[in-house]
Amino acid sequence: MTNLHRIQQHVLEILTQVKNQLQADLSYQTIQIKSSSTDLVTERDKSVEQQIITYLKNYFPEAHFVSEEGFGDHVNNLQGLVFFVDPIDGTMNFIKAHDQFASMIGVYLNGQPLFGAIIDIIEDQLYYGGAGLGSFVNGRKLPQLIDVPLSQGLVMISNRFLNDVPYQNVKNQSSGLRVFGSAGISFTRLLRGSAILYISKLKPWDMAAGWAIGKPLGLIMRTIDGTPISMLKSQTVIIGTRCATEEAERILS
Amino acid sequence: MTNLHRIQQHVLEILTQVKNQLQADLSYQTIQIKSSSTDLVTERDKSVEQQIITYLKNYFPEAHFVSEEGFGDHVNNLQGLVFFVDPIDGTMNFIKAHDQFASMIGVYLNGQPLFGAIIDIIEDQLYYGGAGLGSFVNGRKLPQLIDVPLSQGLVMISNRFLNDVPYQNVKNQSSGLRVFGSAGISFTRLLRGSAILYISKLKPWDMAAGWAIGKPLGLIMRTIDGTPISMLKSQTVIIGTRCATEEAERILS
Repeated sequence: MTNLHRIQQHVLEILTQVKNQLQADLSYQTIQIKSSSTDLVTERDKSVEQQIITYLKNYFPEAHFVSEEGFGDHVNNLQGLVFFVDPIDGTMNFIKAHDQFASMIGVYLNGQPLFGAIIDIIEDQLYYGGAGLGSFVNGRKLPQLIDVPLSQGLVMISNRFLNDVPYQNVKNQSSGLRVFGSAGISFTRLLRGSAILYISKLKPWDMAAGWAIGKPLGLIMRTIDGTPISMLKSQTVIIGTRCATEEAERILS
Repeated sequence: MTNLHRIQQHVLEILTQVKNQLQADLSYQTIQIKSSSTDLVTERDKSVEQQIITYLKNYFPEAHFVSEEGFGDHVNNLQGLVFFVDPIDGTMNFIKAHDQFASMIGVYLNGQPLFGAIIDIIEDQLYYGGAGLGSFVNGRKLPQLIDVPLSQGLVMISNRFLNDVPYQNVKNQSSGLRVFGSAGISFTRLLRGSAILYISKLKPWDMAAGWAIGKPLGLIMRTIDGTPISMLKSQTVIIGTRCATEEAERILS
């Protein structure tokens, strides 16, 4: 029997451990000294992923793990309990800016979102929740999102899409564009209602946590090409409040 | 005789007062309740500007004031001591996101930067300095900026320019694009070396403070059309470390 509160407890515990370590890394300037060393960051990314998966496997030996750096399982279906792990999301921000990066864990049962957690390492803000629990930031319940038109909200569109006129048209019809360079940080802006739309090409571990937390708050998520969302592959997705998402889809179609 | 330390003392004092009030505004949710009310925000913008100018005029009665909301003077030359005041920079972020907005004061003597201060209200980070003082964040000295090629740093380009291919080429040659929607916040990213380039159309009060703090750290600032920088009008400017700025100029020319 899957115990949702037990999942919550262990996911939040390991993300808090990771946050404390990454904050210490930066304050001791181990990263800053070699700020151009992507190798060093890749090593840190790998070690954090291994730490998260080792910790969780101990409590959930029956689960499968999908992750970026290779310590996960080779998963080709989503039966049972699956954890999606992104140890450091927003690597370029981690290297260059020392802020606006996140660690994320999404937990799915038979392909359906069960629980998600995103920790903004520098801001020390932990977003978490799921359909059976409600959604929270640092213990405070997040309100249902307000469904405003595209013209009344900020949109986030990944850099790579901004060369294309249809995506430019989406941002031009909004209140303004923001680009944060991290899926995790972008999801937190949707969750707290600061932005109403996010378009990006995302891997399963980029979107699993944010979708689990945001769906109960009223977010919708669709692929740009109309295919079903799959947590087994990369997809270009549009995530947002309903009005804004549907307006953007009309602009892009 | 202009006393630089007296200017620093009073500018930092009034910005700290403003920060405390704006933080209280948001925590009491006076803004959140009417988050779509731009009128309310405009009123707040005006009252903060009036507060700053009233405070500073008391200590510097000989100075002139250039500001957004109309409480400044009609200045048509830059002789003597001039304060450039931006009470709330990043208004859309203030309204929609409740973060990433700033208050800024730049102080110029006979048209030359003397002192600048930018306070990131939510992060509680106060950047300040000038040629005669060095540049600081919350009392910690900021290091000289490292002059890396465009390909090795993050760039910030205002939304409005991203529809144009030459500006897309600049971002495409960089490590990545960030869009924060606030000149003040964008300047703080340059000052701490998180980003290496910023292109935007700026009013004098948008750039006066950041330029005064950043010039001693090695930033350069030029207009896109090659005309001299003027603190009397709006201009499209490119600000950054030397290599990146010159590479971007070649791409745009």
